Order: sequence, then structure tokens, then C-alpha cells
Amino acid sequence: MRSLHAFAILALLPIAASADEGMWPYDNFPTDAVKKRLGSAPTQDWLDHVRLSSLRIAGGCSASFVSPNGLVMTNHHCAHRCIEQLSTGKNDHVKNGFFARAEKDELACPTMEMNQLIAIADVTARMELAKKGVADDKLHDAIRAEIARIEKECATGDDFRCEVVSLYHGGRYDLYTYRRYQDVRLVFAPEFATAFFGGDPDNFMFPRWDLDVTFVRVYKDGKPLKTDHWLRWTKAGVKAGDAVFVSGNPGKTSRLKTVAQLEYDRDVYLPTRLGYLNELRGYVAMYQTRGPEEKRHSTDKLFGIENSVKGLTGRHRTLADPRFFAALAAAEKDLRQKVDADPALKAAYGGAWDAIAKVTDKMRRYADETWAIELETSDLFGYARTLVRAADELPKPNGERLEEYTDSRLPELKQKLFSPAPVHDELETALLAFQLTKMRQVLGPDHPVVKRLLGPKSPAEVAAALVKGTALKDPKVRRALWDGGKAKVDATRDPLLDFVRSFDADARAVRKRWDSDIDGPLKKYGGQLAQARFKLYGTGQYPDATFTLRLSHGTVKGWTEPGSEREVKPFTYMAGAFERATGRDPFALPPTWLAAKGRLKLDTPLDFTADTDIIGGNSGSPVVGTDGDVVGLVFDGNIQSLGGEYGFDATVNRTVAVDARAIVEALGKIYGAGRLVDELTSSRP
Amino acid sequence: MRSLHAFAILALLPIAASADEGMWPYDNFPTDAVKKRLGSAPTQDWLDHVRLSSLRIAGGCSASFVSPNGLVMTNHHCAHRCIEQLSTGKNDHVKNGFFARAEKDELACPTMEMNQLIAIADVTARMELAKKGVADDKLHDAIRAEIARIEKECATGDDFRCEVVSLYHGGRYDLYTYRRYQDVRLVFAPEFATAFFGGDPDNFMFPRWDLDVTFVRVYKDGKPLKTDHWLRWTKAGVKAGDAVFVSGNPGKTSRLKTVAQLEYDRDVYLPTRLGYLNELRGYVAMYQTRGPEEKRHSTDKLFGIENSVKGLTGRHRTLADPRFFAALAAAEKDLRQKVDADPALKAAYGGAWDAIAKVTDKMRRYADETWAIELETSDLFGYARTLVRAADELPKPNGERLEEYTDSRLPELKQKLFSPAPVHDELETALLAFQLTKMRQVLGPDHPVVKRLLGPKSPAEVAAALVKGTALKDPKVRRALWDGGKAKVDATRDPLLDFVRSFDADARAVRKRWDSDIDGPLKKYGGQLAQARFKLYGTGQYPDATFTLRLSHGTVKGWTEPGSEREVKPFTYMAGAFERATGRDPFALPPTWLAAKGRLKLDTPLDFTADTDIIGGNSGSPVVGTDGDVVGLVFDGNIQSLGGEYGFDATVNRTVAVDARAIVEALGKIYGAGRLVDELTSSRP
Repeated sequence: MRSLHAFAILALLPIAASADEGMWPYDNFPTDAVKKRLGSAPTQDWLDHVRLSSLRIAGGCSASFVSPNGLVMTNHHCAHRCIEQLSTGKNDHVKNGFFARAEKDELACPTMEMNQLIAIADVTARMELAKKGVADDKLHDAIRAEIARIEKECATGDDFRCEVVSLYHGGRYDLYTYRRYQDVRLVFAPEFATAFFGGDPDNFMFPRWDLDVTFVRVYKDGKPLKTDHWLRWTKAGVKAGDAVFVSGNPGKTSRLKTVAQLEYDRDVYLPTRLGYLNELRGYVAMYQTRGPEEKRHSTDKLFGIENSVKGLTGRHRTLADPRFFAALAAAEKDLRQKVDADPALKAAYGGAWDAIAKVTDKMRRYADETWAIELETSDLFGYARTLVRAADELPKPNGERLEEYTDSRLPELKQKLFSPAPVHDELETALLAFQLTKMRQVLGPDHPVVKRLLGPKSPAEVAAALVKGTALKDPKVRRALWDGGKAKVDATRDPLLDFVRSFDADARAVRKRWDSDIDGPLKKYGGQLAQARFKLYGTGQYPDATFTLRLSHGTVKGWTEPGSEREVKPFTYMAGAFERATGRDPFALPPTWLAAKGRLKLDTPLDFTADTDIIGGNSGSPVVGTDGDVVGLVFDGNIQSLGGEYGFDATVNRTVAVDARAIVEALGKIYGAGRLVDELTSSRP
Repeated sequence: MRSLHAFAILALLPIAASADEGMWPYDNFPTDAVKKRLGSAPTQDWLDHVRLSSLRIAGGCSASFVSPNGLVMTNHHCAHRCIEQLSTGKNDHVKNGFFARAEKDELACPTMEMNQLIAIADVTARMELAKKGVADDKLHDAIRAEIARIEKECATGDDFRCEVVSLYHGGRYDLYTYRRYQDVRLVFAPEFATAFFGGDPDNFMFPRWDLDVTFVRVYKDGKPLKTDHWLRWTKAGVKAGDAVFVSGNPGKTSRLKTVAQLEYDRDVYLPTRLGYLNELRGYVAMYQTRGPEEKRHSTDKLFGIENSVKGLTGRHRTLADPRFFAALAAAEKDLRQKVDADPALKAAYGGAWDAIAKVTDKMRRYADETWAIELETSDLFGYARTLVRAADELPKPNGERLEEYTDSRLPELKQKLFSPAPVHDELETALLAFQLTKMRQVLGPDHPVVKRLLGPKSPAEVAAALVKGTALKDPKVRRALWDGGKAKVDATRDPLLDFVRSFDADARAVRKRWDSDIDGPLKKYGGQLAQARFKLYGTGQYPDATFTLRLSHGTVKGWTEPGSEREVKPFTYMAGAFERATGRDPFALPPTWLAAKGRLKLDTPLDFTADTDIIGGNSGSPVVGTDGDVVGLVFDGNIQSLGGEYGFDATVNRTVAVDARAIVEALGKIYGAGRLVDELTSSRP
């Protein structure tokens, strides 16, 4: 929340994305431009190898293979859920860390799925054919149906995950094929206190001193996966000015949105989400004071909320900067003038901006109801809704189902639904009460759904009865319901299932309205604008982030704080962590660090920054050098990187990574994890 | 939070305020225009009588005398703090209501002050003289010094309160002289459950069924005050279409702000405040679940937070409406063109808009630090800061003190500081921890003040130690410190005093920067714009609200919901409360109502709406008929009235009031308060 300094607007390139930035798809990497910038550029072999060594974690992170035996490196915060699920009051791996001394001690993560991108195919022509002549309000369904068909044809089993990705807001469609790994086991995690040293106050800040790393291992048929593609560990590490690449899965950017869409983000979307998240943050923060067990089982939740609050606040502040917004508006004006100046372009694409503005009027009208009726603050509620909807959706042809119930998504859905992670009644009751209170607040007490759900009761009463009465806390019950299909679900009288059922038709209708009136038309007109850009600026542009694999390039580099002109150096060192430590959360180093201090090489680089272009979803991405060796592990961006949602400012936007040298130093000297150090470094040159 | 429907923009009068709306100062009431609109208009005698019958509650509400014996009517929510302060775990007047069967049972409110406006004098010329030739960054101090001089000359004792009010954003200065009453005693309060029936969900909504009334009595020299000015109780009540007036103290509107200031509100001020309030809301809501006693002593706090959240959210939504914002921008453009078209006006005032825009750039830069360093979430912390600052401020000449320590403000300050209301350690610790966490979050853990305040400790640890260690929980200790002055305060080693002292110089410097760079210049350029408006549109305009007494006019009237075209009728009836009741908070009617149902005249009008122009601060205002009789009691506005901060939309903006007939019906038949009914009605015709 510290003030986001004014962007150096001159650095914003309003017209077309420069090759000096960008989250590039592997099949459209700007090799020539990168050679010019960095002196050399990856070969096709290099690209293929790094792509196949890269992984996506289905929940929303990135990772990479770092040994031929399926060892995977990611962030602690990307594995936090697994670590928490494997913890108990007595054995708190979040607090105390975890290390499997031998392979047999590696523990299965209940809900972690890894995806490895094995192929990209352009399916734009097929999608265009499917969209041809379809009315605006039917577009969403037509697109969904064709995507489901393509994905279904591609996915030949649970081992594959196929996804049609809409790039450039509908300007291009690619089929991404992944190999899917669901047997993922925890190998090593440091203590939360060092992984998230500095906590929320230091989040998105630099200098930083975090060891935000976790190792897991992919298993196949009960044995560690053998893989040909994995990243070799660096010997020398990096220094300031070295060229580096980040290979990972940026979640979402909005750099190609129109001004009307940006205004919607600034004035409706972000304020609504922030209102909800801030309130939930205070609610869970106070819940934590109920006791140590309550604190333990709600920490991951709070961590996620705080991270979202800080991220969305940064995004909002970027759009709230009048100069930044004016630069985006000027870029749109420029493009629009160019389109209007060419009669053919004008006829084909000139109406898109006004059409999108009309759609945003509808978004403003529908936003509250759509959001509130699809809200899922409680996990248990989410299970119930998944079961009820799956019962209705799965009997339908694949192409007519709601997106998350299409065949290609089922394995992830099932893994989440069948999670053996414990359900905490007290927390679930509190979260469900919060969800119902929020629904009543947003929809109003006279909304028919609210009246039906609450009747004469208070949200807290209803939540308590539902959590107490439902059998869905048991994963075996959930699995049996899933396996039993519609007949079994329909025949089951569970209070939470009944509750979800009582308004599912209403919720679906609200969602349907959004799909028809908003989602479909936005894809159509967004696609038109993409075509206009292709025609005017060529295809050498990167699309907005879509939580698919991208490669970005840059150098290890600090920055100068605008305003104060303070120089921020690109490296921190292990010694700094000891200097910053106060002994109190979130600035308390764990006992292992304090005990090992004398043994450590304290000038080992701990964290560093680079001017690579990343965003949320890139957490866990490897930073690799020109030789393809892994030199770091992305775990954050600086506060200015949050503005990267809407535009990349090369002067201040920085990736924040753990240095590979600190990882082996800590594994060896703090955690006695020699087995892991050997596995990582034995094959290096 | 239900969506605020798009304003009927045509109804906005962008150029000058129409005489069909407005919060008019009593010395500039548009009699002719009102005669034209309503058929008749108040005489000067009527105006004087209603003015002297009207009261301001120093904390932020309105009220009125309703008997010659000092009986005062206001809202329950305006007296909530007093009612809570007089409650204990055993004797919960908030929950159970309160009625003093005899005069001797009337209980003194610890911190309630009433102000009666006895004179208004124009001091603009004197202020202009004081400002003449003063540099922009010295203006704040020059204005403050002259105001303090004028107020000091006026206030001849604690019985008078004199305030120089800056109207039209610095375009005019008036001296308001009040008679001050601090011996205020609780006479009657209904149960919270009926006063705030519908709770947060129904807040700012209509239809409503709230009995949001409380009676207190002003005492003078230990006896009920004898007053010549009081409002007679209506006999017949009102019906749809009747002309009505609201006499009260609207707190603040922003209808004369420039576009740059409105953008600051929309993009910085409101999001920051809402982020804080939403988080605090969740925090206190979860605190309430700790137990019934915790719930009791935090309910007023939560109620205030929820009310602010809803109010500020409504304001934000108004500014986020692109058509509404465009109408305000068009009005500014029109005025600016008119100024630019006249060389003399242009030379005098043409630069004001750009100058204000430059000031808002600074506001954006300073906002976070200024807000965080002056934050006071905890009452105890507020006491400590008041004592530390008073010690430094009071020895200074009146005109050089911080505003809240000038002589005219001291009685209110002292009343708050010496409040005998109990301090709840647990709540104070939680709130202080919240405040410190928020400071660290906004200022950053490396801010020198944060480092000094926290040292190696966590906010929760620091808060717990301070609350445990301070002696300021005892009002006698606070009074002794106040009476002992600087010598005693400086010599006292209290942990909370030390804590405040440790960063007071920093906090004052940050505040000083705001005053010099922002507050002073805004008054100068705002004043220029006011002069331009006077010259172009005449002086028949109302100023923005300033928490001073205003009279607004209109008729009893429902409205049509834009979009749905649903007609909202202007009256609800007592029967409706029973229909809406569910038995569960916040829709539970109290047992007294349920028991009395058979005796009640159920078709008694309970609440009604009128198109009078009000805003927060008007709570507790009497609604009076053309004959000067009190017919209702303002307690809310509808959701569209929140947009009234920035502009009055006559088609949908409505005042919400309790009907006078329901008040006597309830007093007599539900609460057995015959003594009060007699006092209210005995003198009516």
C-alpha cells in the first residue's frame, strides 16, 4: 500500500508493445529483437528444452523440473496449501518446515496438479468458422461448444490436458496440449517464517530477504518421474547486467483493454472486489486470535486474501494515476484514428470501441448480482455446488456444459473435490456466514433468492446449521456422490446440497445472462480490435497474459525510485536477513537460521531483481541464464510491477527472485538437505 | 450496496443550484422561489422560531426542542453512544430501551452537547483583509489565526460557542454564534431492534419500518431548561403532497468541487477510506462473536463503521457513474467558458481550475502518509494524543493553535476526554493493534516512525502492553492531567503518553505540510471560483453543506425507481413492521411491540419520504409543516440520496423520516410513556 510512484510515462509505449518487454508465447518469440537487445538469443532447441522443463501448477502458479528424477522447484507460497493440508496441530510443517530425508518420506500433496506444455497449434480458422454468422448473444455458447469439441478431440486420457486459449481478446485461438501430473509429493519446504520473511508489510517490496522455495517431486506409476527435460543448476550464478529469461505462466494482464473497459475496472470491478477482500481480511485476521489451532488452519486463507488485497490495490492505484490513464487513452485514440483513416479498416473494425462501451454499460448493471450469486467464500459450499452442478452438467454433451465441467477440466475439478484436506467446522461456519451476509448485503434482503435462502433466520444461524448437518466434510462421501452421478445426487438429502439446489437455477440464469450479453460480444469486438492491430502493427506483438506458458527476457537490474531518486540495488545477501530480523512475526527468522548463522557464507546473494516482464501466476517460474541454467526462482514483483496489469514500465517494473546460490547454501548448511543439494548440483558442469 | 441506479441526468442542473433544491442558510432562504414552488413560504418570524427550536448535536447530528421544558427529539442512532455509555452488562438500555418514569430518573449523558444557533454575522470583509497579500503556503495559518481571533472575541463564556464558517469553499465567511448546552439527560429510548429495524441491510433503503427516535432533555443549573422556542406537535400529521421543511445540520457536500477534486475523491480518497473501513468492519464483526459482553460493547462501533461503509460506497458509486461524472464535467466546462469569455473574470479567476488541479497532485502524493500518521482507531490512543497535544497547544496564543485546541472548541474536547464511559481493554487492545498494523502497512515497515513505534515488537504486542500499562482508562486521571497542564503532562511517565510523544513531532510536520500546501491554497482558489459564480449567477445559490444549520423545502413524496419503473409509495404503516419481522436480528421486533400489537392502531403511518435536500448530519432533524408543527423526524435518506454529496437529483433523492403519529402511538401504547405523550401534545391546538 505504500504509494505507487508516478509512472515514468515516457517509458510507456502506447502504440504497440515493444520487443524490449513482453510475455511471449513460445511459438512467437521475438528472437531477432532479443538478439539486438541482449547480444544473443535462444535457439529453437533452447526454447524447446526450457519449455518442456517448465511447468504450470493448475491452481495458479509456475514451476520447473530441476533434476532428471522429476524434482520440481516452485515457491513455498505455491505449495502452501499442500504443506498446510499435510500439517496437523502436532506436526505443523508450515511453521516448522519439512524435509523428506529419504524418497520414501516424500508425502503426497492432496490437490496439486502439474502441467507440462507439449504442443501449441493454431485453431483460429476453425474457431472463426464456428463463429461465422452467429448472433452476438449466442456467441458465448457457440465459442464454448467449438472449444469443447476441439479439446475433447485432443484429450486422449486423463494424462493429457487440452485447452483452447483465446489470445489477443479473441483475435487468435491456440490449442495448448499439456501432459498432466497429479501424483506430486512434498520433498522440502523451509519454515513459513523465512519463506515469507517480512510478511504482508514486505510483500511486493524490495529489498527482500525471502527463501520462498519449495521442492516437490512428480511421480508416475508410484515412482519418481524420469524426464529428459529439466533445468541444470547454475554453477556461477548471476551478476548485475547478466541476460536472463523467465519461463512461466503469467495469469492475466489487461494491456489491450479499451478505455471503457479500463474505467469499468477502475470504478466497478476493483472497488467491489477490494471491498469484499478487505472486509474478509479483517474478519479472518480477528478469527486468528481465537487460538493457535484457529490461527494455524486459517493462515493460508489470510495469506491469500492479503496478497490479493495488495495486488488489486496496486492495480487500482495504477489506473487511478491520471497521467497513466491519459497515456492509455492516448494510445487508444491513436489506434482509432489510424483505423478511421482507412475506409476498409473503419468498415471492418471502426465500430468495435462503441460496441465495447455499450457492453460495459451492461457490465455495470449486472456486476453486483452476478458476483454475489456466484460467490463461494466457503470451501464446503464450493463442494456442494460442484456436486449439484456436476450432476446436471455431466449428462450433457461436452460442448454444452458450463466451462469448468467440460471433459478437459474434470481431473482438476475432481482432485479439488476429493481433497483429503481436513475441513474445519468453525472456520467453514464463519466463512459461510460471511458469504451469506455479503449476499444479503449486495442483493438486498428482499431479493427472492435471499428470502428463500435465509427465510426468517440470520446468516450465522443458517451457516451453523448447514455446516453442522452436512455430510460433505468427508471426502469419501463426496467421492461416492460424484461416482453415483445425477441419480445419487438427486436422491441425497443433505442440507448443504439442498441449499445449493434451492437457488441454482437462479444463479445459472444470472450467469447465463453475463455469458450471452457480455462475454460473447466482448470476444467478438475484442477480436476485431486485435485484427486491426495485426493489420496496422504486424503480428510481432505479444498477447495479454492468459495463464499459459510465456517467455520473457531482460537483465539482472535494480532501479531508481522516481521522486526520491533512491537507487535500489539488484541484490540482497543472507547477512541482510539477520540484520532485518526482530524476533517477531513477520520479521522473525526461524531457529534453524539462527543456529546455522556461524556456518553460513553470509555474503551469499539471497534475492535479486530483473527487468523481465511478469505478473501474478509467474510465481515459481525459473529464472534461467543464456546457457539455460537455472539461476533463480521468481517469487514476487516489486510494487510497481502491479501496474504491469495495464502496461509495462521498463524503468521501474521489476521481477523479484530467490537466488539459486542461496537455495543450495540454505539446503546444505541450514537444513541438512545434502541429498537434495546433490540431486540439484551433481550434473552441473 | 444494492446497485445505485443511473441518475436521471436531465434532472441535474449543472450550472447553478436551482431554488427547487438546496440546503439553505437561514439568512439566505429563497422565500420567493419557495412561494412559487409550494404556494406559500415561511415568514421571518417562522424562520426565527424554527431556527431557535433547532439544535445541533456536537458529535454530528441534529435535533429540536419539542416542549417548553427543554425536551429534545433526535434519533436513537444520534443518542446511541450515550445509551451505550449508560448501559452495563446487567442493564442494557441499547437492547431493552430506556424510559425515565419521572424527571428524577432522567440520566445524564456523559458526552452529549447541544448547540442552538442564535446569530449569524457576515465576517467576509474582515477575513479578506487578513488574507490580503499572504503567500499561498501561509494562507492556512493566516486564516486560522483570524478565525481564532474572531471566535475568541465572540465567545464570552462556556455557554457560547462561536464558529467562523467558511462557505462556498472560501467565498464567504460567516460567524455563527450558538448557545451551548452540555447537561443533557436521557428521557426515552426504544429498543435498538425497533430503532434500527432491518439493520445494515435496510440502511439507506425504503420502504422502512424504523422507530429511530430518542428523547433527551436539556438541563440548565440542574433544572429542565425553560425555552420559548420549541416545535409544537402535529395534530393531523401529513399526507402525500404536503409541503414540508427540514431544519437541520447537513454535514458536508461536495457539489462545488472541481473535476480534479472529484477525481481525487473517486480515485484516492474514497477507495482509501473504504479499504480501511471494510477491513475494520470484518475485524469488529468477528470480534462480536467472542461473547455477548464483547458484542454489547462493540455494537455502536460496528454500527458506525457499517453506516460509513454504506454511505461512502454510495458516494463512490455516484462518481463512478460515467454519465453523472460527465454532467459534472460539463457544468465545469460551461462555467469555465463563461469566465474565459470575460477578460476581467478571466484575469481574476481563470487560473483557479489549473491551480486546484496542481493542488490535487500534491494531495495524491501526501494522502497516505497524512492519513496513516493521524489515524486514531482506538479511543484510548485518542485520549493520549489529546492530552499530549493540549499540553503543547494551550500555552500558545489562541490563533496559533491547532484548530481543535482553539478556545471555542475546548468544551467539546473536554467533554469527550473526561467521558466516564467505560473503556474495554480487550476492544481497545484489538483496535490499537489494528491501527498500528494499518500504519505499518501504509507507511511501510521501514518508515522511521514505524520503526520507532514498533521496534522489534509486533503491533499486537505493542498494543497489549500499552493498553495494559496506561492509567488513562480512568477519567479522573485524564482530568488531573488536563488540569495539571503542560508541566504535569510532561512529567508523567505513562506508556501511552510516551508512545504518542515519540512521534508527535513527525505527525505534526506531516499535518502542517497538508495545511500549508493544500488546505490554504484550496481555500484561496475555491474562493475565487465562488466569486466567479456570484458574479455570473448571482448570490441566490446555496453553499455546500458545512455542518451548520440549514433549511430545506419540499413535499411528502415517493419516487419511481429508474430502470424497473417501480413506484415507491411515500408511507409505511405500523402493520408493515409486523409483516416484515422474522424474529431474528436485524428483523426481530422487540417483545414490547409483540405484546402491544393488539392495542395498536396498525394503520398509523410509521415512516415516510419527502423530496427535501438532506445529507449525513441531518439525522435527527425535525420535519415541520407550513404551520411550523413537527410532523416527522429525519433519520435517513434513500440509497439515491447518497449521491447528494455531489448533486441533487429531484426525481429520486429522498429524505426518510419517522412519522410523528407513530411516535406518540408507540410512546403511549407500547412504552407506557404517557408522561411524555402529555408533554408533547398538551399544548397543541
